[in-house]
Amino acid sequence: MEKRLWEHIQTVRQQSPLVQNITNFVVMNNTANALLAAGASPIMAHGHAELADMARICRSLVINIGTLDNYWTEAMVQAASLVQRMGKPWVLDPVGAGASAYRDATLDELLKRKPTVVRGNASEIMALANVGGTATKGVDSTAASNQALDAAKRIHRQYGSVVCVSGEVDIVVGEKKTVYIRNGHPLMAKVTGLGCSATALIGAFIAVVDDALEAVSAAMALMGISGELAATASAGPGTLQLNLLDKLYNLTEAEFAATLRITDEG
Amino acid sequence: MEKRLWEHIQTVRQQSPLVQNITNFVVMNNTANALLAAGASPIMAHGHAELADMARICRSLVINIGTLDNYWTEAMVQAASLVQRMGKPWVLDPVGAGASAYRDATLDELLKRKPTVVRGNASEIMALANVGGTATKGVDSTAASNQALDAAKRIHRQYGSVVCVSGEVDIVVGEKKTVYIRNGHPLMAKVTGLGCSATALIGAFIAVVDDALEAVSAAMALMGISGELAATASAGPGTLQLNLLDKLYNLTEAEFAATLRITDEG
Amino acid sequence: MEKRLWEHIQTVRQQSPLVQNITNFVVMNNTANALLAAGASPIMAHGHAELADMARICRSLVINIGTLDNYWTEAMVQAASLVQRMGKPWVLDPVGAGASAYRDATLDELLKRKPTVVRGNASEIMALANVGGTATKGVDSTAASNQALDAAKRIHRQYGSVVCVSGEVDIVVGEKKTVYIRNGHPLMAKVTGLGCSATALIGAFIAVVDDALEAVSAAMALMGISGELAATASAGPGTLQLNLLDKLYNLTEAEFAATLRITDEG
Repeated sequence: MEKRLWEHIQTVRQQSPLVQNITNFVVMNNTANALLAAGASPIMAHGHAELADMARICRSLVINIGTLDNYWTEAMVQAASLVQRMGKPWVLDPVGAGASAYRDATLDELLKRKPTVVRGNASEIMALANVGGTATKGVDSTAASNQALDAAKRIHRQYGSVVCVSGEVDIVVGEKKTVYIRNGHPLMAKVTGLGCSATALIGAFIAVVDDALEAVSAAMALMGISGELAATASAGPGTLQLNLLDKLYNLTEAEFAATLRITDEG
Repeated sequence: MEKRLWEHIQTVRQQSPLVQNITNFVVMNNTANALLAAGASPIMAHGHAELADMARICRSLVINIGTLDNYWTEAMVQAASLVQRMGKPWVLDPVGAGASAYRDATLDELLKRKPTVVRGNASEIMALANVGGTATKGVDSTAASNQALDAAKRIHRQYGSVVCVSGEVDIVVGEKKTVYIRNGHPLMAKVTGLGCSATALIGAFIAVVDDALEAVSAAMALMGISGELAATASAGPGTLQLNLLDKLYNLTEAEFAATLRITDEG
Repeated sequence: MEKRLWEHIQTVRQQSPLVQNITNFVVMNNTANALLAAGASPIMAHGHAELADMARICRSLVINIGTLDNYWTEAMVQAASLVQRMGKPWVLDPVGAGASAYRDATLDELLKRKPTVVRGNASEIMALANVGGTATKGVDSTAASNQALDAAKRIHRQYGSVVCVSGEVDIVVGEKKTVYIRNGHPLMAKVTGLGCSATALIGAFIAVVDDALEAVSAAMALMGISGELAATASAGPGTLQLNLLDKLYNLTEAEFAATLRITDEG
């Protein structure tokens, strides 16, 4: 699979897919820059009056609920419905799932539009699995990462989505197998929106790669490796932010092959 | 006090308080990153439907009126009312006070919710003292910094808030004394939102330090020292922005002690 | 003209004009920082209730339609009407012209308020020339840059605006002549919002320079030269973003004179 993941990275660079983003105010600049650095073409558009036009010209959709209000929620639900009907892929980032009843109600509406991919951290994925009543038992004493893996599998079964739980180890749950990527760096947690940038990259990869599990694995590998290489060259979270964009842009096949730590089971 | 200020910086790093921000579109990314770099956990949320949930889970609130419209104004007033009722601390950044009648009317509503802290530059604090009719005389020929100090004291008397006037010298006015911090660097004025970042840091410190005057002094010292050390290593305002985040993250006790210039009177 | 362009750059640094911006969520931070680095004073304000106050205190207006919705569209139309009536200069950035019917309808309303300047890339300017029925013939087989030049001239004739088509060569179309600036660097296309930053700089220059053609030429020369010098010192699009702000801030007359590649005809 390692070889194909690098090919997918090349495909994004060559095809430069147009990706629509309805995302949060905090990270818009970062995710647009991450998409550009990886070779994709971002468009940020949330106005109700142009959602149909945007769904038509874009190849995929990224929805991120970080800074919700009613206008934006309505835009997200409409846009997800549009791309679902057109058979285009889309990815959901359930930022802050579980933090408010409003977020959870919004996520319930969005999940009904069957996202191609869901990506969140462990606590978000566990909260999301309880939205829409997929939880079948309370959280028990098993380790947190196992709980999140269990939650990811339940979301996958109910909605058909490939589910990525990002963290120290990124876990990607699909139909036939589960992929584990052990790249990244602890300093990445000190920069806002790197998870959101990973989700945006997933949006670019599902636009050009049919196999969603491989698309997500390629996006997470690109993000984890670039962050890892950038962090070792950075004095803190400020410079990491910029070095990461540089590395997304100029990562080579040799660096990719030498740094990737990936396994799967299935 | 110097010793305790450093302890407060350590407390933020250790406790990582969750801080709600209703702030402006220009600086959201910067203030989230400043909070993360200093060790806090930012959450940006303005949707009316989740204000009550956010007030419940966060330990403090930051309100910044930089890019106002009616929806956001209403969110700010509601959120301030909620945390006031719950007895949680909050800080107000009156960006552009005096620039429009709309801003001043909004600030009047917010001041009635008795912010724990107010932070602005000299002209904003002077304009704010005239909101709500606290001005007792016209601006006379005394020096601008004295005028601002007088305005800060009047706001403190009327609303009970600790008031910080930031500038070449940062002045913090509290019940028992007034603190003067002489750190920072002129290049900091060429980066947008560093004042807003200082306010966000205040939000983190009032979440974990009971004495608001000390909390504000610690936040302003951290910001001024980090900016000063970062600026001397920067070629211009672009790199300063990133070096500042690095320094907020990795400032040491030795650097802090060697750079701090603080006095008080009272 | 080269000598005068440098003088205009100095004028912005000395006068520090207050520039109102109603722009998109993605680039607000970048354009505020670009204005500050170039010596201007940005204010971002879109609330309907304060548009009249802002028009009164600002010397020019920047409108950028990157992330439209009805509230923002209405703010843009109102603000453009206000400054038009007051005889103050304003610049329009038609981001994504042609991408949706909604954008084109909004642009039609804005063009009626006769922007002092319009700046876009070739495809945006060509799409814009078709808004409001200025197109007199279909797009034929002539080269893209010629098509864009033709479109720019038609917009200029119909609305009186100085029109800038930015790209590998920046073309500025005015009443008496057309200016060609051959600065910049391909890496600039990998950073989001640099076109928007160029537009913001134009906003600062038209605030202090009466001759709009010269104001636009000076702004585009400053942007192109700063970007070119910054890119040669950058490992990728991340560091370019910051180095560009540094260079906008510290560009010297000697660097400017040695790097500028400008011609005109007409």
